[in-house]
Amino acid sequence: MIKVAIVGYGNLGKGVEQAITLNKDMKLFGVFSRRDKDTVKTNGSNVYPYSDLLEYKDEIDVCILCGSSDKDLRRQSVELSKHFNLVDSFDIHTLIPEHLANVDKQAHPSQKTAIVSVGWDPGIFSMQRALLDSILPNGKTESFWGFGVSQGHSEVVRRIEGVKDALQYSIPNEESIDDFKEGKEITDFDKHERRCYVVADALEHERIEKEILNTEHYFKGSNTKVIFISQEEMDRDHQGMPHGGHVLRRAKTSESKTQLVDFQLKLDSNPEFTASILVAFARAAYRMNQAREFGGFTSLDVKPFHLSSKSRNDLIKEML
Amino acid sequence: MIKVAIVGYGNLGKGVEQAITLNKDMKLFGVFSRRDKDTVKTNGSNVYPYSDLLEYKDEIDVCILCGSSDKDLRRQSVELSKHFNLVDSFDIHTLIPEHLANVDKQAHPSQKTAIVSVGWDPGIFSMQRALLDSILPNGKTESFWGFGVSQGHSEVVRRIEGVKDALQYSIPNEESIDDFKEGKEITDFDKHERRCYVVADALEHERIEKEILNTEHYFKGSNTKVIFISQEEMDRDHQGMPHGGHVLRRAKTSESKTQLVDFQLKLDSNPEFTASILVAFARAAYRMNQAREFGGFTSLDVKPFHLSSKSRNDLIKEML
Repeated sequence: MIKVAIVGYGNLGKGVEQAITLNKDMKLFGVFSRRDKDTVKTNGSNVYPYSDLLEYKDEIDVCILCGSSDKDLRRQSVELSKHFNLVDSFDIHTLIPEHLANVDKQAHPSQKTAIVSVGWDPGIFSMQRALLDSILPNGKTESFWGFGVSQGHSEVVRRIEGVKDALQYSIPNEESIDDFKEGKEITDFDKHERRCYVVADALEHERIEKEILNTEHYFKGSNTKVIFISQEEMDRDHQGMPHGGHVLRRAKTSESKTQLVDFQLKLDSNPEFTASILVAFARAAYRMNQAREFGGFTSLDVKPFHLSSKSRNDLIKEML
Repeated sequence: MIKVAIVGYGNLGKGVEQAITLNKDMKLFGVFSRRDKDTVKTNGSNVYPYSDLLEYKDEIDVCILCGSSDKDLRRQSVELSKHFNLVDSFDIHTLIPEHLANVDKQAHPSQKTAIVSVGWDPGIFSMQRALLDSILPNGKTESFWGFGVSQGHSEVVRRIEGVKDALQYSIPNEESIDDFKEGKEITDFDKHERRCYVVADALEHERIEKEILNTEHYFKGSNTKVIFISQEEMDRDHQGMPHGGHVLRRAKTSESKTQLVDFQLKLDSNPEFTASILVAFARAAYRMNQAREFGGFTSLDVKPFHLSSKSRNDLIKEML
């Protein structure tokens, strides 16, 4: 049994707690949180203060870090990779090389294995992009995201004066996907619609819509729609966390032969899916550590068979 | 530059010759064939007799075996893995464990790296099945093949008395795919249509159709349609080698949350796509050998980054 610790207990941590119950070779040691123990309501798992984590070093095979990239993981993954095998879901794309190097510097000399930036993008989508780019070098890859909530953009709308509640969904444009498949040019503007559901007083609607559409770096120049709804509708219709997306590659293998690959996700729950991926990669981190692969890694460094609870022989029989 | 030898020069060997031109880190040493040298018309590559292959041992980094599973690879991969790094596309699913063990027995003590059963199924599809099974353990996977020619079934029809020419296409049933996505039960009968295009004298049509539909192990009990066409139509409309397919997984991460993944191929040329995959895995075989990973392997043992011509840093920057 692989003994797992969850570090941080939000939606993602809850998803990991649930996902571990579906993996018979894994056992949850407990949840570590910086919050007051009594305020952390788990689904039955033990709760420990984050500050005590090092005390349980010998009872934990791998930590799954479920904090936010910006506030938690940038420091936490680096500190903890000196003492634990771990996985994190660090997702600030431009900072990944630096984050990976910082983690590697701690993990390698301590003979620990840390896999960073695990999830679906970065993560599973990255693996597909790398695979498809490798087998079809003469082509073009496009990624589409949605239908699903963009947390960062939602937050920006919520901060506008007069906005009582808001969610922003990214919606991939099916026409744009079809155009790409047919080899037509597509623009970033056309790829996605940004749909904002906003709760606000009727008198404020016009001004708020204008402010949203003019927000630099977020909505200005993008294909944005603003829809005002009541708080009741928000609470009733927007509590799920669906998401999804595509990685598409269109490539030529010779002048007249086009090959098209479409990897597609349709998710009822974004955090539960991301959590499920983290759990499989936690297994890989543990297995790679057993195989003396030490240091900082990403999803691109992991062999499929290290992800599976099945033996190599069973996997070959069942999957090939 | 990775120096590659092609062993066997049919459609697949031709595809590999073409694919290598798209991979700037690879160089084709030549084609090895058992046929009379003058009858092997390559696209400019040198041709050598198969019996001379061992003489060039030091000038070849990796061999790509392009023979047939049954007639060639069962012996060839085993013999050659003692002397060369190699990849093959051995695709008799039930015999893969035995084939892999035989290859491993030769490759391991000779410090060679041999990756067997590479292609899209087994191969890329196997990797997707293993990945999805690992991250979503509580679900069901279905694979669909087509629209494309099934060589084995075509051969069976061609052997029927009176048949002048024939091709059998596997066509996945879109309704069945939709049903699976929605969580409905589907049957093997419904998954695919087997469509046979047959050239024969009009007087023989009735008997031939009956014989096809009653062929045990191939068509009896399956959803088969027979369509008679002229030789002219056969030559005009059926010279392409398109193919495609899906790997679908539908899984639950908790009681009310369903996650759906669809990996989909649409190929203008089956042999060119398979060849492109073989070339990327030939790179991986060479790289794994450099990293002292010796023995027999499958696609499930390969890290994405070993497949790519890009450096690990570039790959992390571009793909994550």
